[in-house]
Amino acid sequence: MDGRTVPFYGLHQAGIATPQPEYLEFATFDVTSEAVDELRALLQEWTVIGDALTKGERNLLRKEGELGGAPADPGEAADKGPAHLTITIGFGPSLFGATGGHQSGFAGGRPYALAPLPSFEGESLDADRSSGDLCVQACAADPQIAFHAIHVFTRLASGVATLRWTQQGFGRTSSTSRDQPTPRNLMGFKDGTNNVRVENDDEMNQHVWVRPGDGPSWMEDGTYMVVRRIQMLLDVWDATSLEGQERAVGREKVSGAPLGQEDEYDPVDLEAKKNGELAIPADAHIRLASPDLNGGQRILRRGFSYTEPSLAGAGQLDAGLFFISFQRDPQRQFVPIQRRLAANDALSRHLLHTGSGVFACPPGVQPGGFIGEGLFA
Amino acid sequence: MDGRTVPFYGLHQAGIATPQPEYLEFATFDVTSEAVDELRALLQEWTVIGDALTKGERNLLRKEGELGGAPADPGEAADKGPAHLTITIGFGPSLFGATGGHQSGFAGGRPYALAPLPSFEGESLDADRSSGDLCVQACAADPQIAFHAIHVFTRLASGVATLRWTQQGFGRTSSTSRDQPTPRNLMGFKDGTNNVRVENDDEMNQHVWVRPGDGPSWMEDGTYMVVRRIQMLLDVWDATSLEGQERAVGREKVSGAPLGQEDEYDPVDLEAKKNGELAIPADAHIRLASPDLNGGQRILRRGFSYTEPSLAGAGQLDAGLFFISFQRDPQRQFVPIQRRLAANDALSRHLLHTGSGVFACPPGVQPGGFIGEGLFA
Repeated sequence: MDGRTVPFYGLHQAGIATPQPEYLEFATFDVTSEAVDELRALLQEWTVIGDALTKGERNLLRKEGELGGAPADPGEAADKGPAHLTITIGFGPSLFGATGGHQSGFAGGRPYALAPLPSFEGESLDADRSSGDLCVQACAADPQIAFHAIHVFTRLASGVATLRWTQQGFGRTSSTSRDQPTPRNLMGFKDGTNNVRVENDDEMNQHVWVRPGDGPSWMEDGTYMVVRRIQMLLDVWDATSLEGQERAVGREKVSGAPLGQEDEYDPVDLEAKKNGELAIPADAHIRLASPDLNGGQRILRRGFSYTEPSLAGAGQLDAGLFFISFQRDPQRQFVPIQRRLAANDALSRHLLHTGSGVFACPPGVQPGGFIGEGLFA
Repeated sequence: MDGRTVPFYGLHQAGIATPQPEYLEFATFDVTSEAVDELRALLQEWTVIGDALTKGERNLLRKEGELGGAPADPGEAADKGPAHLTITIGFGPSLFGATGGHQSGFAGGRPYALAPLPSFEGESLDADRSSGDLCVQACAADPQIAFHAIHVFTRLASGVATLRWTQQGFGRTSSTSRDQPTPRNLMGFKDGTNNVRVENDDEMNQHVWVRPGDGPSWMEDGTYMVVRRIQMLLDVWDATSLEGQERAVGREKVSGAPLGQEDEYDPVDLEAKKNGELAIPADAHIRLASPDLNGGQRILRRGFSYTEPSLAGAGQLDAGLFFISFQRDPQRQFVPIQRRLAANDALSRHLLHTGSGVFACPPGVQPGGFIGEGLFA
C-alpha cells in the first residue's frame, strides 16, 4: 500500500514539474464523436476521475455503473493506494483538423506551436505508434497503478474516443531535479545530467511554461509535449569499443563526466582540446544537443526506458527510450535540436525513431473546472 | 541501490521456490551451432555469469572484453545492486530434435515429460511468441536489472544461440507463500490463493520437484516449466456484471472468498448450495481448476501481469497474464487441467492464449558445475 499522493489540481498539470516516479503508461485516443459537447463531457469526467484516482479513491469494486451492473471500477488497483499517480492530458494537432481527425468548433483553432512535427532524417515512424487526437500520460510508482488509470480512462472514453496506441516505460531516463541521482539509460550511460531543473522557476518559465503572448490564452501556464519512441540498436552498440561509445555520447561512461573533465556535473566545455583535438568530438551527442549550438534553447526531458517483446525473427532485443519532453514551443525548441541531431549526431546511428507525437498540455485547473476548459470558452 | 541477493547455486535452481519479486524478463533462444561443445561452453558461461549477476558483481564497465575493446558489460545495471535477481535456465523439446531444431548428441535424449504441448481449444498461438531451444527466466525487484540479465545472456550467446522471443512482466499474479498477500490480476481478482506453497516440502516434492524414477536422472531435483501468454479481453470483461464476473471465477471480487464462503482462505466447497443451486457454478474457473476435479494434481503458479503497446487499429488494451507454472510432469499436471479449462471454463471466454512454451529446468548446481551438466555426462 503506497499512500503517496501528488495533487491533481493546481496552476500546472501534474506529471510535468512534479517528481518523476519509476513507471509510465501512456496512451493516445482518436475522437470518434462529432459532438463537441460529448468531448467536453469526457474531459469533465476524466478530470473528476483523474483527481479521484490520484487520491486513491477509485477502488470501489462494489459501486456499480450503468453498464448492466458492471463494476464502476475494474478493480486491479484495489488495496494498492495512489502510489504517486499523476495524470497529464494533452491535445494533438489532429484534434483541430490539421491532419484530419476531429473537426471541432473550438474558439481560436490550433495553436501555431502545435504544428505536426516535420520529418527527420533517418526516422522510421510507425503510424500505428504515432499521433492521436488526445493523449494521457499516467506516471506512478507502481506499473499496475499507471495501467489502471489508462484502463479506467479508456473505458470512460467509450462512445466518444477510442484507444489509438499505448506505450509503457520504466526507470527515469532523465534527472529532473538535483535531488534525484542521474539514472543510466539502456545504453549504460547516465542520461539527463544537463536537464532543465524543475525547481528553477526562471528556467521553467523561460523554456517550459507557455507565457502570456505566446499564443492562445487557453494555453498559458500549459506546455507542449513531444514524445518519440526511440529503439536502441543494441547489438551494434554493444560491439562498439568503450572509447567509441564515449565519443558518440561525449561523456565518460562510468563517471558521466563530459570528455576532458572529471566530474559528472563539471561544465561542458565545447572548446576544450586534448592532444590537439576537440575533447568532445564535433559529432558527439552532447555537443549537438547543447544549448550553445541551439540558440540557448533547452527542453525539459522526462522520459522512460522501455523493453518490449522481441518476436522470433527480429533477432535482437526491442528496447530503448520513450523520450518525453516538455517545452514552450516545439517549433523553436525540439524541432531544430532534433533536426541537428538527426543529421549529424554520432549517437543517431545507434538509434531508430519508430513513434512520434506532439500534444498541447493545457494548464492545470481548480476543483470545479476541467482540463482544457479554455478550449470551449 | 538494492543489495538483496538470492543464491544462484544450490540443490534447486533459483526462481522457482524462492520468493517472487515484482519484475520479469523472459527470453527463449534457438541454438544455431551444431557443435555440442559450444552449447556446453555457453551453459558454463551462463552459469558463471549468472552467479556473478545475482551477486551484483558484473557492473564492471571498464573491464574490456574480446570484441574490439567493447565493454565486457553493457552497463545499465551499474550502481543498482543485485535487486533480488534470480536466473532460471530451461531446455525446450526442440533442443532434443523432437520438433526440429538442435540435433544433439545428448545421452538419453528427450525426457518423456518434455513432450511438446498439445493444441488446446480456443487458443490462438503466435509461433513468434512460442517455443525455443533454451529459455532464461530473469526475475528481479527492478525491471532494469531483469532486462540487464537477459541483455548480457543474449550477448554471451552470440555465435551459439540467437534470441527467439522475449516477454516482460510485472506484479506477482500468484501468491507462492502465505507470507505474501494475494495480489490482484488485471481482471481485478485476487489470483493464486490456492497455490502450492513453496515452504511446504511435502507439496513441493509431490507436485513440483522431479523425483528419482520420474525419468532421466539428470532432471532429479529439477522441474518442468510451462509458460502461456494469456491476453485478457478486457473490453467485454469490463462490461460484464459483477455477478457474472464472480460466477466465472468462482470467488467474490472484493474479499477473494470462494462463492458461498466468507474469507479468502475458507476451503473451496464444491458441493455447497445456495438457493438450491451450486454456490460455485459448474463452469466456474476455480471448480474446473480444482485438484478435486484433476485427480489431486496441482501446479506451482508463479506468473506475472503484462501490459504492452496496443497499436492503432487494435482498439483495446493489450494486457493480461504471462502464466508460468512449475510441475513434476506437465503431461499429468498442466495438460489435463488446461484441457478441461479450455473446453468448459466460463473464464476462458474472456482469455486468449497467444504464446506457449514448455521447458525442462534441470536441478541446481554447486560452484564448479554448470546448469544442465547432467545432459553432457
